[in-house]
Amino acid sequence: MAMEAKFVFRDQLSTMAKERLEPSEIGEMIKLTIENDAISFTAGEPSADIYPLAELKEAFKNVFDETSLLAYYKDDFGLIELREWIAARMLVDGIAPKWVNSENILLTNGAGEAIQLVSEALIDPGSVVLVESPTYTESLLTFRKQGAQCLSVPSDDEGIVPEALEDILSKRSVRFLYTIPNFQNPSGRTSSLDRRKKILQVAEKFDIPILEDDPYHYLSYDRVPPDSYLKLAGEDKRVIHTNSFSKTVAPGMRCGWAVIPSSLIKQMNALRVSAGLTRAAIVQKGLVNYLKSIDFNERVNFLCDTYRVRRNGMMKAIADHLDPLGIKTNYPSGGFFVWAEVPFIDDVKSFARFAVVEKKIGIIPGSAFFTQDEAHKGNNSFRISFAKVSPEVAQDGMLRLADAFDNYSSNRR
Amino acid sequence: MAMEAKFVFRDQLSTMAKERLEPSEIGEMIKLTIENDAISFTAGEPSADIYPLAELKEAFKNVFDETSLLAYYKDDFGLIELREWIAARMLVDGIAPKWVNSENILLTNGAGEAIQLVSEALIDPGSVVLVESPTYTESLLTFRKQGAQCLSVPSDDEGIVPEALEDILSKRSVRFLYTIPNFQNPSGRTSSLDRRKKILQVAEKFDIPILEDDPYHYLSYDRVPPDSYLKLAGEDKRVIHTNSFSKTVAPGMRCGWAVIPSSLIKQMNALRVSAGLTRAAIVQKGLVNYLKSIDFNERVNFLCDTYRVRRNGMMKAIADHLDPLGIKTNYPSGGFFVWAEVPFIDDVKSFARFAVVEKKIGIIPGSAFFTQDEAHKGNNSFRISFAKVSPEVAQDGMLRLADAFDNYSSNRR
Repeated sequence: MAMEAKFVFRDQLSTMAKERLEPSEIGEMIKLTIENDAISFTAGEPSADIYPLAELKEAFKNVFDETSLLAYYKDDFGLIELREWIAARMLVDGIAPKWVNSENILLTNGAGEAIQLVSEALIDPGSVVLVESPTYTESLLTFRKQGAQCLSVPSDDEGIVPEALEDILSKRSVRFLYTIPNFQNPSGRTSSLDRRKKILQVAEKFDIPILEDDPYHYLSYDRVPPDSYLKLAGEDKRVIHTNSFSKTVAPGMRCGWAVIPSSLIKQMNALRVSAGLTRAAIVQKGLVNYLKSIDFNERVNFLCDTYRVRRNGMMKAIADHLDPLGIKTNYPSGGFFVWAEVPFIDDVKSFARFAVVEKKIGIIPGSAFFTQDEAHKGNNSFRISFAKVSPEVAQDGMLRLADAFDNYSSNRR
Repeated sequence: MAMEAKFVFRDQLSTMAKERLEPSEIGEMIKLTIENDAISFTAGEPSADIYPLAELKEAFKNVFDETSLLAYYKDDFGLIELREWIAARMLVDGIAPKWVNSENILLTNGAGEAIQLVSEALIDPGSVVLVESPTYTESLLTFRKQGAQCLSVPSDDEGIVPEALEDILSKRSVRFLYTIPNFQNPSGRTSSLDRRKKILQVAEKFDIPILEDDPYHYLSYDRVPPDSYLKLAGEDKRVIHTNSFSKTVAPGMRCGWAVIPSSLIKQMNALRVSAGLTRAAIVQKGLVNYLKSIDFNERVNFLCDTYRVRRNGMMKAIADHLDPLGIKTNYPSGGFFVWAEVPFIDDVKSFARFAVVEKKIGIIPGSAFFTQDEAHKGNNSFRISFAKVSPEVAQDGMLRLADAFDNYSSNRR
């Protein structure tokens, strides 16, 4: 038998490590799906068949020709050439107002690191952070890790309800509002232009900033998304906007960014240094080489054409197999996700484990996406991702899922 | 005139952002050195002429052939192949005890990110962290950012003084001891084997963990360094060890690692996820391809041969130009740094600015390397780096530095 370790990390752990860390339910379900060799409706991950491998390979050929990229990179916020590309693109695409330039673009290890750095800058233990209901799990975990009390603002199919936001803000002191306005993860919802304007007015009235997370922006299958909060706010620089190349290029690039208003640049830079000085400039260089070698609009059109077929295939499979069961879903106009509500069971978390093990179909239970005060709402909901799912596999998977519901419910009768 | 931003981030800032962030003096002096086109004794950065550019280019050729590397990488702590290489190498080189295997190796964005994640796991606001005197600036900034009160333990040419450590631990509750045992940044000191054993005994007696930061391990020019704390502790897993490829391959790889004892793995994994899910597996793959394509011992010998010449050249220049002024320096047996104490001025920070602007020679003032309670010790000390300095440039730079001392002192008389 192995000798037991004398020392155990316990008394030395921080409050953060002892009380505020939770495992990611998404990560756990993805693992279970792989282990059970199941069809996956789990991951919000782009389909590997559409990574631009050949083009990236070509674009990375010369990154080792510039010695300076192998040093500690000198530009504070990352490779200036990529930051210029991003700023220019955001202006052209109407995502950013005119004040946004390369100096405001902070390159990060995916949008996740951007959200982590913003959390460090804005959250104290006990701070209230407002989120949509439901919202993205990993962001919730990051906010809570930093000590935030996450409160959900009632949302409907048009996004956050302005009156509900105003009601909360009139009672509570709040650090910021976190929103995923387009094709939201997990609900698939897109906030309307009218709603965005009203939400922004409320934010101005109560003087709170907005953290706008927009990773699905370009994955819009039916129409152009409404103006971003960042753009709508204009010169009133209360919006921090995060985004990434995970969906348009490949997640493995680990390249995200945040648009940082000038009054926050100094702090964000110090926080960035603390998290490992610089990020890999060779990756940033290869990525900008790639972006400059292609027609980005064509790339976006190709992605939208591909995912639209999958979205349509999934919605057909839902109509065929879930609608008859009385399971309620919405119709996403972009992104990767469909949200489903099940009126006839109240423990989707156990159901999801049953479905993946017994019927080889993986879904993410809704419980992952709610704040603690609303945890019950997750008991009868789940997230479906169609990102990697062909129409044929969608049919096969939905058959399995319907079968799982049938068996699970009968078992419990 | 530009319209002024209506919103300013101020009331919403966290205590961390408002009170605990400090600019890096090292970063500022490096910038001043570049701006003034000065000779640089500043950066603890490997010399660009010895980056293995051609070999890296070759090693990265096939990273885009494995689609899975472009996804969110599945292995929690990073590319398993690189973690296996690191664990095996640490065993072979006698840095790690037998329990260390790939499961304990967490890949990070440089050792800096490893230190940040460890800080999150172990530091609460007000926690006491013990550091050497002097110590590495960026680690101090990271500990303080997390709210630590950093206390310095008296150190001499053999490293931390065990009796002094015992004295502090008998009075204060401490979260951990941070040490750079080999060729310390900034002092150039190496802790003796005897000292390490004694320090470890004291750590065991008071049951505190040790964070051992060993980035200069392989840059040993005169003899093999003593056993690591990690190895000396053996089955008593109280040591977290951090390291990186910044010095042996290139800083721009942004690839560091931490050896995480089993009782801390779960927490470190949750913290890692929060800081951006995964790190770039393509870089980790290219790096391990490179490491497997070379004889690592030969690479290390080449590096040591190169830097030994520079160390010798710098020590000669110091003997020629600083010794006559009465400036006291030590003789580092590895790494990049020489520590200097100036008996005749007490504001090296202003002197360093004078030297870089007026005489075009950049050094890092000592004030960057001390805790707040010892800030005065930085007033008459500075760090010299010989990493990028040929013997010829060392002579030229030291002439300028001696000239600067001469002018600065006369100006103030």
